[in-house]
Amino acid sequence: MAAHEMFAADAASQALGIELLAAEAGNARLRMRVIAAMVNGHDIAHGGYVFLLADSAFACACNSHGPVAVAAAADITFVAPARVGDELVAEATERTRFGRTGIYDVTVFRDAAGERTVIAEFRGTSRIVDRR
Amino acid sequence: MAAHEMFAADAASQALGIELLAAEAGNARLRMRVIAAMVNGHDIAHGGYVFLLADSAFACACNSHGPVAVAAAADITFVAPARVGDELVAEATERTRFGRTGIYDVTVFRDAAGERTVIAEFRGTSRIVDRR
Amino acid sequence: MAAHEMFAADAASQALGIELLAAEAGNARLRMRVIAAMVNGHDIAHGGYVFLLADSAFACACNSHGPVAVAAAADITFVAPARVGDELVAEATERTRFGRTGIYDVTVFRDAAGERTVIAEFRGTSRIVDRR
Amino acid sequence: MAAHEMFAADAASQALGIELLAAEAGNARLRMRVIAAMVNGHDIAHGGYVFLLADSAFACACNSHGPVAVAAAADITFVAPARVGDELVAEATERTRFGRTGIYDVTVFRDAAGERTVIAEFRGTSRIVDRR
Repeated sequence: MAAHEMFAADAASQALGIELLAAEAGNARLRMRVIAAMVNGHDIAHGGYVFLLADSAFACACNSHGPVAVAAAADITFVAPARVGDELVAEATERTRFGRTGIYDVTVFRDAAGERTVIAEFRGTSRIVDRR
Repeated sequence: MAAHEMFAADAASQALGIELLAAEAGNARLRMRVIAAMVNGHDIAHGGYVFLLADSAFACACNSHGPVAVAAAADITFVAPARVGDELVAEATERTRFGRTGIYDVTVFRDAAGERTVIAEFRGTSRIVDRR
Repeated sequence: MAAHEMFAADAASQALGIELLAAEAGNARLRMRVIAAMVNGHDIAHGGYVFLLADSAFACACNSHGPVAVAAAADITFVAPARVGDELVAEATERTRFGRTGIYDVTVFRDAAGERTVIAEFRGTSRIVDRR
Repeated sequence: MAAHEMFAADAASQALGIELLAAEAGNARLRMRVIAAMVNGHDIAHGGYVFLLADSAFACACNSHGPVAVAAAADITFVAPARVGDELVAEATERTRFGRTGIYDVTVFRDAAGERTVIAEFRGTSRIVDRR
């Protein structure tokens, strides 16, 4: 499927050990463990890596339909800090599609022994591109 | 100065070879070279790394005043793709401050032989936190 | 209830004929008919009125818990144009709350003979304020 | 010029007494007085009207080049409340343009005896449409 092929070719996500748990019909679920190299000057996970995980989930969700789609814009609200060793999961769901545009919501949460803590809320806008 | 100390302790930015070129009075300027490990499934720089660079510049700018500030939220519009080898510069400028909140605009551009191409436009909202 | 009292005192929403259909536990549902005075230079409903309807729904949802909350920020994506005579409904749902902050999603749609067309997607961030 | 013609046909802005002070080359400046019908349940100007003023300034700025452009998305941060009788000015400036897309920043401020108080910061994304 388009999302799985794209993810397999995504060197950035692979190098960070991000796993694609599921992707289909506008949805996707990815997992990433926070490592020491992801920590910022406040001793918490750099917002850039939290965004990156959400963005990868968004990319898998918006490419799950087949046609190549790219991120046009995104916003993120940081809800709680993540720390080294945390297992973060990003769940992307499709909100709406119109023309070549799609809107996807991604929740990043920490999953610890079944307890789910929201880390960030993300919303992305995708555009289908002509590329062969 | 607060921004330089914070940046020196930012393992994530250091590990990526991001350089702090300047930070003072609400502004900051950082540089990052796109490496192979930053490329996504579309063969362009993963949006997460473009965001990360902008977010680091934002952090330096909003912490340049002294009190510890963290990112509360941010949005990014992707203007043009960046590729392996590109030298990206992020320039953060303070837009306004009120109460504990600040708004910062960051432009990420590619600087090639003096030609400046906008890669992304970012806006971040910071909050001053009590932390000693 | 807090949301209903607040809405009853909202001169702006009242003057536009906006109706509060429901508000409880972080959710709200409002309705507005597009009138000729709401049309812009492209002959479609001015985005400001679509935003206003969504913002009123957001205000009812985030004030449904009791403590006074105000809008700190919001974003909107315009999906389809609305025209004079359209009945627009805004449905606000709570996404998450943390500290004094809440995130609410609002979908504005046209309801015509049971056919639901999305007009805009809105996300708002609220802050609880101390006010007596 | 395109922006002035469009504004003259904008029934919504006209009905609210919004004045177009200037519009050219990607910039625009508009003024609106807050009236009693614009106040919300917290006794301050409804965020929808602050957004509407910013959105009208954005529309004038992005249509100042000639081709018809519409708002695709926008975000707003509310900085300070506005009250009945306040004279609000919205200043839109073009940040960047690429393909059919443009990004515009709008600051809404209160102008009282030369003292300028920021009320809101807005950023809009426009798309040029084919329409004749």
